[in-house]
Amino acid sequence: MARPLRTGRLEAFSDGVFAIAITLLVLELSVPTDVRDGLLHAIAEQWPSYLAYVISFAAIGATWLAHTGITHHLRAMDPGLVRLNLLVLLLVSLMPFTTALTAAHIRDEGAERVAVVVFGCNLVLVAAAVSSLWRYALRRGLVDPDLDDEEVRGLTTRLTPGVAGYVGLILLGLALPRLAVFGYLALSLALLVPVGLRGEWPTRPPGSE
Amino acid sequence: MARPLRTGRLEAFSDGVFAIAITLLVLELSVPTDVRDGLLHAIAEQWPSYLAYVISFAAIGATWLAHTGITHHLRAMDPGLVRLNLLVLLLVSLMPFTTALTAAHIRDEGAERVAVVVFGCNLVLVAAAVSSLWRYALRRGLVDPDLDDEEVRGLTTRLTPGVAGYVGLILLGLALPRLAVFGYLALSLALLVPVGLRGEWPTRPPGSE
Amino acid sequence: MARPLRTGRLEAFSDGVFAIAITLLVLELSVPTDVRDGLLHAIAEQWPSYLAYVISFAAIGATWLAHTGITHHLRAMDPGLVRLNLLVLLLVSLMPFTTALTAAHIRDEGAERVAVVVFGCNLVLVAAAVSSLWRYALRRGLVDPDLDDEEVRGLTTRLTPGVAGYVGLILLGLALPRLAVFGYLALSLALLVPVGLRGEWPTRPPGSE
Amino acid sequence: MARPLRTGRLEAFSDGVFAIAITLLVLELSVPTDVRDGLLHAIAEQWPSYLAYVISFAAIGATWLAHTGITHHLRAMDPGLVRLNLLVLLLVSLMPFTTALTAAHIRDEGAERVAVVVFGCNLVLVAAAVSSLWRYALRRGLVDPDLDDEEVRGLTTRLTPGVAGYVGLILLGLALPRLAVFGYLALSLALLVPVGLRGEWPTRPPGSE
Repeated sequence: MARPLRTGRLEAFSDGVFAIAITLLVLELSVPTDVRDGLLHAIAEQWPSYLAYVISFAAIGATWLAHTGITHHLRAMDPGLVRLNLLVLLLVSLMPFTTALTAAHIRDEGAERVAVVVFGCNLVLVAAAVSSLWRYALRRGLVDPDLDDEEVRGLTTRLTPGVAGYVGLILLGLALPRLAVFGYLALSLALLVPVGLRGEWPTRPPGSE
Repeated sequence: MARPLRTGRLEAFSDGVFAIAITLLVLELSVPTDVRDGLLHAIAEQWPSYLAYVISFAAIGATWLAHTGITHHLRAMDPGLVRLNLLVLLLVSLMPFTTALTAAHIRDEGAERVAVVVFGCNLVLVAAAVSSLWRYALRRGLVDPDLDDEEVRGLTTRLTPGVAGYVGLILLGLALPRLAVFGYLALSLALLVPVGLRGEWPTRPPGSE
Repeated sequence: MARPLRTGRLEAFSDGVFAIAITLLVLELSVPTDVRDGLLHAIAEQWPSYLAYVISFAAIGATWLAHTGITHHLRAMDPGLVRLNLLVLLLVSLMPFTTALTAAHIRDEGAERVAVVVFGCNLVLVAAAVSSLWRYALRRGLVDPDLDDEEVRGLTTRLTPGVAGYVGLILLGLALPRLAVFGYLALSLALLVPVGLRGEWPTRPPGSE
Repeated sequence: MARPLRTGRLEAFSDGVFAIAITLLVLELSVPTDVRDGLLHAIAEQWPSYLAYVISFAAIGATWLAHTGITHHLRAMDPGLVRLNLLVLLLVSLMPFTTALTAAHIRDEGAERVAVVVFGCNLVLVAAAVSSLWRYALRRGLVDPDLDDEEVRGLTTRLTPGVAGYVGLILLGLALPRLAVFGYLALSLALLVPVGLRGEWPTRPPGSE
């Protein structure tokens, strides 16, 4: 009988894609060449690029964290999970593109609305895909049975605010695109706040496991 | 006596190349700068880029899956296998180039045929190389002997339709290049359909191994 | 009860980001196209790019080494450590950008000062973030208790000169930007000098552990 | 007492750099835009790019293989080994640049000589650095003592022809640059020939260990 698929390579491949997507973001930062008003001024003029960079870095980082939390509790994989995981990676690897799109057009009357909504759609789709990955694993019984109900609920709860929050911000973006971008920033950073501080995953004193 | 080569680094290096090739595809998506007709219109105009992106993402994803299936059943490596694996990686890492070639020329009367055939050749060579890797491992006795005949046939069967399908589509591409591209899309997605649904690898209830 | 988070994926993801950031540096080296005075002369004209490349390669390499030293002694992780680690990675992945900025403007009267200070700030922030990671792990009791006090002090000492040195060089850079860049080179290489040679981590004869 | 450094992260980080460098080569292949004589003709005109691509892919692949062979036999690391390894990675990650340089100038009377010699120097420095890594590990007693003398000599022998061969080809390149490039191709492919076929590492029947 075939050995069950190990989760090791799924984690290694996913870590690779997360690490590359998060690092490729830097290629969208261009070195200013027009420095007539001084390089400092030229760098400051590029604030949309840095803003979009930090949002995407935080969002991919939070997604990697959520993904780690999920695979940490998996005890088996099935073919559907592997494909759903590929969908997560497809959406994550689009982030450098939608980030660049937003940075390029956020000061562009008319185009800013489309760019901000596309960026938000990418963010919400990533969050929704990761959330689906967890729900799929639960439904198919792929999660470690030693995990008690409270912990399952905790992880489920953590994965939800992202989706709801981004949907709200996309709607805001239709009216006030720039404000929505600052909302993306706040939300992606909030999703990174140490969960211990929010009382969901208690930080156990080391050694108490 | 030298220790036998572990498969660990072959997997790690291959995962790295797969992950990078699949993520580099995004660099071929360019941010539209001419937005006189609106950014949404400019994005829609780039459909060949998105189409080629999804095809290549699915094809590399399917190749990674097949590769994982193969190395999962290896119990030893030999020098020939390592070189054959490098050939697989060479062909995979060419995908961002042939993808960009297709996206750039698919609306280009005259050039479209060449681009689509080159793209198809890359896809079929990847599929053929992965299939050869499996046959080589079988022939050299590198596969886990616990794997029963039915499972061996199952994996062999799964690796075959890709090659035959892409050859057919390349021939189609000589006459109807655009249609062939949609064929590549359908085939690369089909190769990703959960195998459990096709009755080849039954999804065992977890814990039944 | 949930299993404690393994350090494995944190290491794998971090190794990925370090490896990509250090390798992406090469994309900032451009192939000279104007070779009227000979290709050798054109290559020599690009010395700022090579200089910045070596500085950043050495700095990222030294950071990876320090990071390896830290995670090697961790016996547990907590949510704060994971976020602090993301901050280290954010700063490391900015290096290709600030490297390119310095290479582009080091011969540019007026802009050179800003470029060199921004580059130095990136270098010092990376060093400070890595140092914070270690202090955080110590303070939260995440470090292997078998590590004796002398070894803890040794690693703490090793992580300090980077921060102090880069701060001094940034101040120098405000007055003499080019000299500061050669200071960055000397310091980043010095941080790579085998620690065994500095009497901090004795090179034990193999097998004596 | 501190635990000895594991070789795991050195391998993971090195695999990352090898995988990225080998995959970044594809970014130097540019999609032809001038297709007045047909796309096939335009692609054929780019032969220097494909030639340089295959050389570098084979050379990095062979280096990765040699590196795997070396770390496979390590039983301990020391600080010097880690730094020497960083030097190997620095030289490997320069390959996409020297590859692009050669592809751009090989048809450029006058510049071709410089490009080909620079490319050759990169190739020989990589081979020499990997060879030094092995000799260093031997001299410092870091190699598994179970490895018998014949096997040590076998690996030492395998690492030598690269250096000598590339030096010869660089000298040839001073006179006949284009011929030397084909020499690089032959040599880098030869270094990949299954060693089993050359009687150095016998391919043991599986299970005989």
